[in-house]
Amino acid sequence: MTERVALGIDVGGTNVKVAFVKEDGTVIAQGSIPTDPARGPERFSLEVAEYAKALAQKNDIVWDSVTGAGVGLAAFMDVDKGWVEESVNLHWYNVPIGDLLSNALGKSVRMDNDANVAALGEVWLGAGRDARTALCVTLGTGVGGGIVIDGRIHRGVSTMAGEIGHIQVKNDGELCNCGHHGCLETLSSATALVRHAKEAGLVGQSEELTAKEVFDLAADGNEIAQVAVADMIHWLSLGLSIGANLLNPDVIIIAGGVVGAGDALIEPLRAAFARDALVRVSRSCTIVPATLGSQAGVLGAARLVFQ
Amino acid sequence: MTERVALGIDVGGTNVKVAFVKEDGTVIAQGSIPTDPARGPERFSLEVAEYAKALAQKNDIVWDSVTGAGVGLAAFMDVDKGWVEESVNLHWYNVPIGDLLSNALGKSVRMDNDANVAALGEVWLGAGRDARTALCVTLGTGVGGGIVIDGRIHRGVSTMAGEIGHIQVKNDGELCNCGHHGCLETLSSATALVRHAKEAGLVGQSEELTAKEVFDLAADGNEIAQVAVADMIHWLSLGLSIGANLLNPDVIIIAGGVVGAGDALIEPLRAAFARDALVRVSRSCTIVPATLGSQAGVLGAARLVFQ
Repeated sequence: MTERVALGIDVGGTNVKVAFVKEDGTVIAQGSIPTDPARGPERFSLEVAEYAKALAQKNDIVWDSVTGAGVGLAAFMDVDKGWVEESVNLHWYNVPIGDLLSNALGKSVRMDNDANVAALGEVWLGAGRDARTALCVTLGTGVGGGIVIDGRIHRGVSTMAGEIGHIQVKNDGELCNCGHHGCLETLSSATALVRHAKEAGLVGQSEELTAKEVFDLAADGNEIAQVAVADMIHWLSLGLSIGANLLNPDVIIIAGGVVGAGDALIEPLRAAFARDALVRVSRSCTIVPATLGSQAGVLGAARLVFQ
Repeated sequence: MTERVALGIDVGGTNVKVAFVKEDGTVIAQGSIPTDPARGPERFSLEVAEYAKALAQKNDIVWDSVTGAGVGLAAFMDVDKGWVEESVNLHWYNVPIGDLLSNALGKSVRMDNDANVAALGEVWLGAGRDARTALCVTLGTGVGGGIVIDGRIHRGVSTMAGEIGHIQVKNDGELCNCGHHGCLETLSSATALVRHAKEAGLVGQSEELTAKEVFDLAADGNEIAQVAVADMIHWLSLGLSIGANLLNPDVIIIAGGVVGAGDALIEPLRAAFARDALVRVSRSCTIVPATLGSQAGVLGAARLVFQ
């Protein structure tokens, strides 16, 4: 019997990552091309398909052995219809990207949003292996979330499940991009950490202060950075405890560049979470850093094919 | 082929409800006996089994046609082991109630906590029929919650999922029984509504002011009652929006005696929820009152057998 191979496609704002992945998680080929959404979704689909086919040929992957393709992208979408309703990054509105890619590839296509496929990737091959209920939270420009239950993404009815970035944790807090106040995203994203540290007077080494740098300065004894980090972790723990009291996960995976801070993030977060969540919830839940980095999306996208 | 019949057992603080239910949801016999946990779990199990067998006989239900039993009770438990770890109501600690009941009945037994079986009952036969993702919130002495995804209870890893009563919605709020501050339970339970109304000076007709009475007084123009009701709905909406942004349910079911207030509760709650939740979450979600009342638990318990 021929081994099944999935094509994973992770459409980011800058690059489209492509990987051929076996059912056991082995990556047999991967690469990327620049994202150029301005040329329109039809052209985009043809270019991705052309690149994927060339990549397969170069790596002796028989195209007929490719079971299907999974696609992750930052968008509001109708997963069942394969329809992108709105992708601010890609400037796509009401685009039947599932059908376009399926026609271009000659394969069936499954899709999901970027936070969900990243969560699925981490549960499949990364920090959440064997998790029964996993909550994956990505700290970046915003705070993204994905829920994986028994190895499958919990999407909810309109692929909006896991939006932990937009739960209110601070009453009468800052206005969020979503139009609400006090969202976790306004307090615990990498962007928020940097903004709050700057507002408090922190000056970095380089022009662009990064979240990782705020952590480093805090470790070096900078009090402004320490306060900003403590505040970010305080609200993150509250948000995670809310998510955990609702979902009772065995694993919470923290992803995003700020994970580079290592124990300086994870240890105080675990301590705060043990205080904030219900005892029976916190004691059956481990908070772990993501391990797949920027590979989580493309691997999770491939995993969609095997579900 | 003989039709399958499930035995549902709902162990409340006052009564044990028992029902024989067909796979299509038809109740073919039901009754109840007083709960007497003081006599110990072995005696309790034998008495419940004796009562169930007599009830079956009286209603011409062939005992061999009973596929199994489902049990709901207010407890922390290990569902897989059939073990009650702690039930404050019943004064049971580390009791293998699953095995005890199974031996007494001569049937396999499945169990879950009261909030979960009530949610399952409402999704099976009540307000949440055909829901893909349902969040059921019971407003009583506390605030209980249950999550049903694709017709099955989402328990999480230690049967704690759905604890929406213990998510913090008010920063630095009142101390809750769970040891944390500002839990939804301290703001939106029936008990909290009554307590807050009394603290604000509301006096009821009878000795014991009920939540329903606070709603009635608000409808009659009593300003203290109106403020208390508005405050309760404000926090409830915030809690539901947090739950909905995480779970993206198609249905939120509100249960408990306070549902008797009807539109005076549901209409302003829907309006607040439409403001508080993400647009794509609120527009794909309906808030509905529970329809099964105190029957939800025993029906949901029976449903466990067919899963």
